[in-house]
Amino acid sequence: MERIRSLEVATRLGQRVRVMGWLAQMRRVGAITFVVVRDGWGTVQAVVREAPDVPLESVVEVAGTVVGEPQLELHDCTIAVIEPVTAPLPVVLSKKALALPLPALLEHAVVTNRHPTRRAVFRIAAAAMRGFRGALDREGFVEIQSPKLVGTATEGGANVFAVQYFDRTAYLAQSPQLYKQVMVGVFERVYEVGPVFRAEPHDTARHINQYTSLDVELGFIASYRDVMAVLTRVLAEMVATVGACEAELALLGVTVPAVPAAIPVVDFIEARAQIADALGEHHRGEPDLAPEGERWLGERARAEHGSDFVFVAGYPLAKRPFYTHPDPARPALSNSFDLLFRGTELVTGGQRLHRHADYLAALAARGMSPAPIAHYLEAFASGMPPHGGFAIGLERFVMQLLGLSNIRLASLFPRDLTRLAP
Amino acid sequence: MERIRSLEVATRLGQRVRVMGWLAQMRRVGAITFVVVRDGWGTVQAVVREAPDVPLESVVEVAGTVVGEPQLELHDCTIAVIEPVTAPLPVVLSKKALALPLPALLEHAVVTNRHPTRRAVFRIAAAAMRGFRGALDREGFVEIQSPKLVGTATEGGANVFAVQYFDRTAYLAQSPQLYKQVMVGVFERVYEVGPVFRAEPHDTARHINQYTSLDVELGFIASYRDVMAVLTRVLAEMVATVGACEAELALLGVTVPAVPAAIPVVDFIEARAQIADALGEHHRGEPDLAPEGERWLGERARAEHGSDFVFVAGYPLAKRPFYTHPDPARPALSNSFDLLFRGTELVTGGQRLHRHADYLAALAARGMSPAPIAHYLEAFASGMPPHGGFAIGLERFVMQLLGLSNIRLASLFPRDLTRLAP
Repeated sequence: MERIRSLEVATRLGQRVRVMGWLAQMRRVGAITFVVVRDGWGTVQAVVREAPDVPLESVVEVAGTVVGEPQLELHDCTIAVIEPVTAPLPVVLSKKALALPLPALLEHAVVTNRHPTRRAVFRIAAAAMRGFRGALDREGFVEIQSPKLVGTATEGGANVFAVQYFDRTAYLAQSPQLYKQVMVGVFERVYEVGPVFRAEPHDTARHINQYTSLDVELGFIASYRDVMAVLTRVLAEMVATVGACEAELALLGVTVPAVPAAIPVVDFIEARAQIADALGEHHRGEPDLAPEGERWLGERARAEHGSDFVFVAGYPLAKRPFYTHPDPARPALSNSFDLLFRGTELVTGGQRLHRHADYLAALAARGMSPAPIAHYLEAFASGMPPHGGFAIGLERFVMQLLGLSNIRLASLFPRDLTRLAP
Repeated sequence: MERIRSLEVATRLGQRVRVMGWLAQMRRVGAITFVVVRDGWGTVQAVVREAPDVPLESVVEVAGTVVGEPQLELHDCTIAVIEPVTAPLPVVLSKKALALPLPALLEHAVVTNRHPTRRAVFRIAAAAMRGFRGALDREGFVEIQSPKLVGTATEGGANVFAVQYFDRTAYLAQSPQLYKQVMVGVFERVYEVGPVFRAEPHDTARHINQYTSLDVELGFIASYRDVMAVLTRVLAEMVATVGACEAELALLGVTVPAVPAAIPVVDFIEARAQIADALGEHHRGEPDLAPEGERWLGERARAEHGSDFVFVAGYPLAKRPFYTHPDPARPALSNSFDLLFRGTELVTGGQRLHRHADYLAALAARGMSPAPIAHYLEAFASGMPPHGGFAIGLERFVMQLLGLSNIRLASLFPRDLTRLAP
């Protein structure tokens, strides 16, 4: 008898089936035992006469007849142990909620990731990646893989990890920024899904030191509004793909937001004035928005436009990286944007400089030498169209979408100040 | 008039269209100039009266009427320069072949990757990744992202890059091996596409120090033949997806191989004896196959089975990593395999140990301590099914499929002993 997946059991009423998985729960009631078997997809309850004498999480095989009433379960079962657990489990996985303090949950992630509530998070993360790629493949983007070892820090000095690279020092890439821009010269439209590394020594609920960056760059844009339009379509597909994970969302009690066909846009200068009017004079004239101001914008977008998303566009140039394109009409401001989701920054993007001379001027204005990035600047000296792009942090996207309390919960095996294992 | 892609021009005979791209070639013939514009997808020839006074690779826009005879081109054109090239190009891109020595080609990769022959390689690499994921998504695999910074070397000691990780030393992951195995406990079937790092100090045509590993692992296998069956289906879809890149394959003069529904399998011990009979006694009793022996096996698979692929199964356990599962019937041999493509190793895989006690014994037998991987061994102490998997090096796959002379040509921006840029 061929093994079937837990998800298929409901389609086999009255039939004899075989399932395999982990012994997730056992409950004795008089002479019978209710056994819950968890496989890679879901769970199946089986009613057995002779309970297996092995601990939970042992790997088992159950054959039984599918009944639908009073509930979906297997009757007349035989159960066999494929692999018994031989040591005490480090954590309790059999409860509906994984009631563990965060450090213990992360310390034993190789086991705690088996819990249905944890597994749901990572199945949703996989769906988000699939939606991201699907949307971009359809729009003619080409996937690239760029180096993670670089000779110089991408975005300027701090917060890079140093690597002993044979007889010299390399650095872990903080982003594929320059590579994706250079590749606009090759394919016009590119994306990458890959790890990025930030040596930020911050122990907060929003920082991890390796995360998965979903990077996009496209050429021949008429304005950075073209970039925002691509981002809107990509987000819509990511949210739709996640939305199809119905069982996982139900388990986590999450409803996915609607992505409007046109996400509302507010100008940075106007937004800042409105925030100062509403929340106090100390917000006026600041070069960036405070979290409190972003939350206020998020609430207003919700109230006025019924949108969980709002673009803030036209940030001061000084607060953006050197490759950011200024707004020609307002040179102290930039053609860049943030996308806020429920009042918190989710995505950053914008138009980039595309002229070699503009790079030299921008670097000089910031006191940076062009020498370390000379290899990349060669692309801009060799003909580049107006272009722009954006980056979405996968873990941040998942955290915000699912309302997780800590970004570490959106990473299978997070890296932070104290964690290099598991 | 909306811009169209070069690929769409053929569908617009008699119509007026607008294309944008890079000035790839200019050839004056009397009073007219033939201009070839390259965009992200292909090229278009335009016949212009007034040739633009800018160097090749300048970014231009051409409007013209599509004619189909004597060849597909644009007539009655206007041409405008979007961005002129202002400095001499570092390389000549306008010839049919990119006639550059490898070091120069790599040194100027930000520009040489624009050449149609280079671009074709990377479009094929993207197709291979798409085929890989597509096949696995359909078979219920879940995509994961694992840490690239680890506290200890995955596969045992040598050839790892050390990273200064705050106040301690981390290492760059040589493979996601232990993570993908652990994740079998969560999803049963997982895959990952990501960078791996090997600090091998070899300057050969087959080594780079960062490559893209296509990793797969699956649980509840009956034997490692199940792993070979999944690999066969994945390979078939990768080759099919690449095969759909008709223009790129034609440009490179490559025909993709057929992947047989059942790839022939030869037992290591038998293969070694046959090689010794055919090629000489020095092959007899060796613990691994020499490249010469692999080539001979490849030729025989071609001659006898019409197959470009052949599995060699049952390698000596001593030559495989500690997590390899022995063959219960022949304990000095393993349930592992290599897949040879045209006589060269392309994929390695096999069944893994799944019992905690077996790990402790295998580590002890190799004089390795379990302490550095204690966090991962916790998964095996907590119930794991029989499982196995494989890893395909993307760049090696592309190199062998396209017959490239050096693996560096299959990497956008390769990392080797001397290269950390571009």
